[in-house]
Amino acid sequence: MNTHDSVDRIWTAALLVIGDEILSGRTQDRNIAQLGIWLNQQGIRLREVRVVADDAAQIGAAVNALRAAHDYLFTTGGIGPTHDDITVDAIAAALGRDVVVHPRARQMLEDFYGTPDAVTETRLRMARVPDGAELIENRVSGAPGIRIDNIFIMAGVPAIAGQMLEALAGTLAGGAPLISRTIGAWVAESEVAELLQWVEQTSRSSQIGSYPFFREGRVGANFVIRSVDPDDIEASASALSAGLIALGVDPKPDGI
Amino acid sequence: MNTHDSVDRIWTAALLVIGDEILSGRTQDRNIAQLGIWLNQQGIRLREVRVVADDAAQIGAAVNALRAAHDYLFTTGGIGPTHDDITVDAIAAALGRDVVVHPRARQMLEDFYGTPDAVTETRLRMARVPDGAELIENRVSGAPGIRIDNIFIMAGVPAIAGQMLEALAGTLAGGAPLISRTIGAWVAESEVAELLQWVEQTSRSSQIGSYPFFREGRVGANFVIRSVDPDDIEASASALSAGLIALGVDPKPDGI
Repeated sequence: MNTHDSVDRIWTAALLVIGDEILSGRTQDRNIAQLGIWLNQQGIRLREVRVVADDAAQIGAAVNALRAAHDYLFTTGGIGPTHDDITVDAIAAALGRDVVVHPRARQMLEDFYGTPDAVTETRLRMARVPDGAELIENRVSGAPGIRIDNIFIMAGVPAIAGQMLEALAGTLAGGAPLISRTIGAWVAESEVAELLQWVEQTSRSSQIGSYPFFREGRVGANFVIRSVDPDDIEASASALSAGLIALGVDPKPDGI
Repeated sequence: MNTHDSVDRIWTAALLVIGDEILSGRTQDRNIAQLGIWLNQQGIRLREVRVVADDAAQIGAAVNALRAAHDYLFTTGGIGPTHDDITVDAIAAALGRDVVVHPRARQMLEDFYGTPDAVTETRLRMARVPDGAELIENRVSGAPGIRIDNIFIMAGVPAIAGQMLEALAGTLAGGAPLISRTIGAWVAESEVAELLQWVEQTSRSSQIGSYPFFREGRVGANFVIRSVDPDDIEASASALSAGLIALGVDPKPDGI
């Protein structure tokens, strides 16, 4: 369950994306957006992301900086069976812990592959965890994710990372979910910049982002109002819509 | 032109992605992959990415850490005309410089909007730069990117950032381009993990990444060989293909 200790307490998380393939551009990351959306639902803000190479020193430095600065740290990538999968070793080293084979992780691999013999030395790499860690379920591939202290070590394949997040849903302490409402308009954002600033400054708690685009040969923008307070979002949306109409612009209540 | 000072010198870059919309999951980032691919072509390695909120302190801390650690720092996002566009002010503060209106940027906006009168106070925000900065051309929107020291400040909209990269192509000192070759196979990566490690260790300079997938009800993987040395890539690809065949696996020479 979510623990609503205090409305004012903002719970924050960081994500560390591990993998040469993201930095080289070979693979389009999908985990930043996936985690950001999931965390909003848990009442936790994704505040920072870092992407680093398959490099133990780089991983260790980022892990130690991010786990200290945030309530939670998630990592994606580098937990498979091949030589470039060094996440568990790098994180254990950063925490000053040994790496051990987790008995239940070994059992999960045996169940997945059918027999103990099929869990070769190489596959057994996927059951290695920092000493003291718990497992995060994964029904797709048999190889579990890992929780150690406030760190959640997940797969890089987005579908598998998504399964691990499903297994974690509702289990982390968080605050009120961050919600948002989008109002669109066929207008250059520079025409309404002062209005946006005024609505944000006069609201109790709303933050307003402006996201311009070029489409169908015209300029437009979506204005995203974010807050934990639904009433305040409604008030800000009303003020913004009225302001747009006063400027001769037609507000689209569900964005464009 | 690229300056090939030394084959051994590895030029590195970092990317700072600025924007609440990336962290909330509302917007799928496209600039990490776009920049990674472009930098490979320039002979520069993207070594680290950070994503931060529209928060001056967070932007400033990341800029100062990354510009010192790498040859180049690129930023995307937060250079539009609205109140949430704080990149220029945050970077100028981090560098200890004033913010000034760049005369040529003002001229570019006047040309784009047709008359000086159309460049309102709000639009003129897009001509503000840290004192001493140069401009990066942008034919899409009239608002230029900014170069200051080893920092390249670009738009968040991927099409506009891409135009700015086109304007910069070939102008940065770099090393030999990193090239890659992909060999695919319908095999679980755990079956060939030792082969991959052996090929990497016995090669002169190749790095091999293993990227598993589930498709058409089967498991497979792509093995990406990366190096600056085309001959070494060919040798590694031959060794890997021969090793796969010896294990009874059919190598797909262009990946799957």
